[in-house]
Amino acid sequence: MRRAPIRVSCIQFEPVFGAVAQNVARACDLIRAAATDGSALVVLPELANTGYVFETAEEALALGEPVPDGASSRAWVSLARELGIHIVAGITERDGDTLFNSALVTGPQGYVGTYRKAHLWDRENLVFAKGNLGFPVFDTALGRVGVAICYDGWFPETFRQLALAGAEIVCVPTNWVPMPDQPAGEAAMANLLHRAAAHSNGIFIACADRIGVERGQPFEGQSLIVGPRGWTIAGPASRDRPETLSAVVDLDEAARAKDLNAFNSVLRDRRADVYG
Amino acid sequence: MRRAPIRVSCIQFEPVFGAVAQNVARACDLIRAAATDGSALVVLPELANTGYVFETAEEALALGEPVPDGASSRAWVSLARELGIHIVAGITERDGDTLFNSALVTGPQGYVGTYRKAHLWDRENLVFAKGNLGFPVFDTALGRVGVAICYDGWFPETFRQLALAGAEIVCVPTNWVPMPDQPAGEAAMANLLHRAAAHSNGIFIACADRIGVERGQPFEGQSLIVGPRGWTIAGPASRDRPETLSAVVDLDEAARAKDLNAFNSVLRDRRADVYG
Repeated sequence: MRRAPIRVSCIQFEPVFGAVAQNVARACDLIRAAATDGSALVVLPELANTGYVFETAEEALALGEPVPDGASSRAWVSLARELGIHIVAGITERDGDTLFNSALVTGPQGYVGTYRKAHLWDRENLVFAKGNLGFPVFDTALGRVGVAICYDGWFPETFRQLALAGAEIVCVPTNWVPMPDQPAGEAAMANLLHRAAAHSNGIFIACADRIGVERGQPFEGQSLIVGPRGWTIAGPASRDRPETLSAVVDLDEAARAKDLNAFNSVLRDRRADVYG
Repeated sequence: MRRAPIRVSCIQFEPVFGAVAQNVARACDLIRAAATDGSALVVLPELANTGYVFETAEEALALGEPVPDGASSRAWVSLARELGIHIVAGITERDGDTLFNSALVTGPQGYVGTYRKAHLWDRENLVFAKGNLGFPVFDTALGRVGVAICYDGWFPETFRQLALAGAEIVCVPTNWVPMPDQPAGEAAMANLLHRAAAHSNGIFIACADRIGVERGQPFEGQSLIVGPRGWTIAGPASRDRPETLSAVVDLDEAARAKDLNAFNSVLRDRRADVYG
């Protein structure tokens, strides 16, 4: 049965480091506005409740919360239920004394699942444990939803795993930073990486980045939504302004887009027999 | 020991279908000019000796040649020896009654090796057999050279395999065609795919595309050379004009570029423990 197209929104905003209640409330306002505009799936940036630049693990332990039982999760679970939408939100997860850079997935019927970032960037390695939940694909009422977080997107394996497991859209809470040797004014490398990944896998990708400079670390903005042939369908957003980026997507296209012509289909054409 | 930087050139030209001797002679002239300008490594497009659009396997069998014993190979092997350079040339290979979409790699000391395209595009499937030589990396006097041909570049696995096997530069003879749903005037998707692959693997990639329209099939041009951080260092070339694109590259950078900061290195950070 064909599904109706849905509106997907990526919320680009600037969390304030450590101001958890304020960040969650701000995100809730922005999610509510997106829902009023008809969004059925809303993506927030990475670590949207706490901010990003932890100087010590202690600092992160103090701010981290269990998922889905902590206050930030409960606010978003409750809001998704009230609005009848799905939310994918980056969150600092504390599980006992272990921290994960995670994403909460929640929907109209409540908590759906958690993804824990598999590839840790830079000093995150001093704070977080590497994700230990694999690359889950969540079977929601909207369709099959995967999640990747920031540096996960540097690894083509991330999207390949998710696509092979049936993901139709991958939601990417992110805090992109400038890359080494990046020429001034050049578009974010991340934009290319996610367009390439969408094209090579025939999937939608929705990236919600943060903006601002936190403890000296600048972020790239340029959130974007990519269609399953790799062409940009919303964005890229600005480098430095809060924006809610939206696109209407027909998730049935993710299956059709895999076929490039009568002979070629991007997943079927893999030469697993010669890959090491 | 540090190696001196070398000049790499990609020859974008328009082979004439079926005019093998003429195409090889034209390519030799262009290679000679590139060598005069100091090029140590020259890349030709895919199927540069025969042209691309075979209507039947019989047509390809009539034009295919053994590698490296056929006339086209011998011309390029001889020229590389004379000029003291390396050449990577797309060629229609006939091996008995089997056809491969191949690339000849040859250098100052003669024939180096052959790569056979692993992922066949569209009606190539009616003409060619799938490559059966894996993804070899050739250990040359210049450095470690891998080869991919056109649609191979749609598969991140291609570059990952080559990078994990130590390739410092991947030469890409190609005949890029427009992609489905490509918006008018949009840069070739292939440019993105190869920039993403270079960045995610810390390797140089040198793509030599053809131009023109052959039997109704238009080609994209836009040859380019990408550095190991994914930034374009030469090109993209025009869509429709013959051009020799050149860049001076320090292949030692391929090792250094893999490290993005004190914590991250693009190959080491792979989560092979969670990839399926």
